[in-house]
Amino acid sequence: MSKTKLSIIKIGGNIIEDEQALNTFLSIFSNIKGKKILVHGGGKRATHIASKLGITSKMIDGRRITDAETLEVITMVYGGLVNKNIVAKLQALQEDAIGLTGADINSIQSDKRPVKEIDYGFVGDVEQIASNSINKLLQADFTPVFCAITHDGKGQLLNTNADTIASTIAAGMSAIYETSIYYCFELNGVLKDFNDKESVIKNIDINSYKDLLQEGVISDGMIPKLDNCFDVLKNGVTKVYIGNTSMLTKENNNYTTITL
Amino acid sequence: MSKTKLSIIKIGGNIIEDEQALNTFLSIFSNIKGKKILVHGGGKRATHIASKLGITSKMIDGRRITDAETLEVITMVYGGLVNKNIVAKLQALQEDAIGLTGADINSIQSDKRPVKEIDYGFVGDVEQIASNSINKLLQADFTPVFCAITHDGKGQLLNTNADTIASTIAAGMSAIYETSIYYCFELNGVLKDFNDKESVIKNIDINSYKDLLQEGVISDGMIPKLDNCFDVLKNGVTKVYIGNTSMLTKENNNYTTITL
Repeated sequence: MSKTKLSIIKIGGNIIEDEQALNTFLSIFSNIKGKKILVHGGGKRATHIASKLGITSKMIDGRRITDAETLEVITMVYGGLVNKNIVAKLQALQEDAIGLTGADINSIQSDKRPVKEIDYGFVGDVEQIASNSINKLLQADFTPVFCAITHDGKGQLLNTNADTIASTIAAGMSAIYETSIYYCFELNGVLKDFNDKESVIKNIDINSYKDLLQEGVISDGMIPKLDNCFDVLKNGVTKVYIGNTSMLTKENNNYTTITL
Repeated sequence: MSKTKLSIIKIGGNIIEDEQALNTFLSIFSNIKGKKILVHGGGKRATHIASKLGITSKMIDGRRITDAETLEVITMVYGGLVNKNIVAKLQALQEDAIGLTGADINSIQSDKRPVKEIDYGFVGDVEQIASNSINKLLQADFTPVFCAITHDGKGQLLNTNADTIASTIAAGMSAIYETSIYYCFELNGVLKDFNDKESVIKNIDINSYKDLLQEGVISDGMIPKLDNCFDVLKNGVTKVYIGNTSMLTKENNNYTTITL
């Protein structure tokens, strides 16, 4: 018997921070057929509110150092403000959404990142997802909306990378579903020429990826993203897509598909 | 066939704001047998964070006027910070909690309060609860934890009184369950003499309530609370209890039971 399809969609700051872009995306999202899960990052809003509260966000190598005060702001902004407004907007679109952190239904447990050269603070590296519990929500026809917060199972919330959450959920749910993951970002897809926004590479597989790396076409920032895509494919996810949110509509065929 | 029992427990600011009191309560809560739902207010934390953000909380007759900025703070503090930390703490106690606003699974719809003499702003008066959807969570062995936020079904979150949320859920769920509601507050129960904390009135029914009102024993603040208790009893709730959190343990028999 073939598995039911499940789409995992990840959106980031560029959509969250732009009310109109968010509304357009949520309308597209609500029109996706079948079971689906939304994962959202938080973007600069947390930084903005932290600074208003007199908390300076420390960043090292593009990663936020999450001290106790910053974790409070992240919990407020990602888990409260952003997540619950998305849920309310989806409900208005007749999408029966439910907003979650990894603490809710113990859905995503993580380990506090060990202190080596850098102490990242209250940052979690995902340990496991509760696929059966998440599936109970899907089976009840609810649409999970995850923010980028997990917990350690001992009462501590932890700030966690949204891409990692999306890929871990996708991989974990692939035991039950035929899972696809859509990483939405500001570009149309992976570009052959960074200065030409139309130069989307339509398909990348593990062989062509090696060539693209050797040719230097894939640049620094995209390498961990693509490595992560191949990891999830190896972990049972059927297809990975990278592009802007319009790739979720029938009208747009201009995005990147990643396969093994 | 007799109905399964469901306990609805409401806690307020006095517990939320005191880390040790909260931990003690959550430990008691996790030991309650059978199906249960927690409803929490937010307390002064929202006011505190709002003032840090330069937002002045306007109060009229003890009710917060919820302008757009204040609603954002409430969504952050109640829906994010307070709710998700409670969920994480409950998970550490092996309680499979799930944190919710009324927008999640469309659980509690409300109407924005009409503007009469006072414009309360983004405040919602509860319209209906989705008892079947809430029951799906209970049937999946999840423990719902509600904060005091609802939505209008059109994308707008609304600040809502936690007592009302608790009583509406209790009344709504009583079609499916034998429902009891526990209102936890700082006193041991309804007092005969406000200056004597041990003068708890053990039982109040609709006749003795009339007498207590005539005698002037029940004071202003308690009248709407008790009126509300009799309302929920008329709406199918089996028992209402008022007292401090220790009434949820076997050791304490010193609290007020309200019956029709």
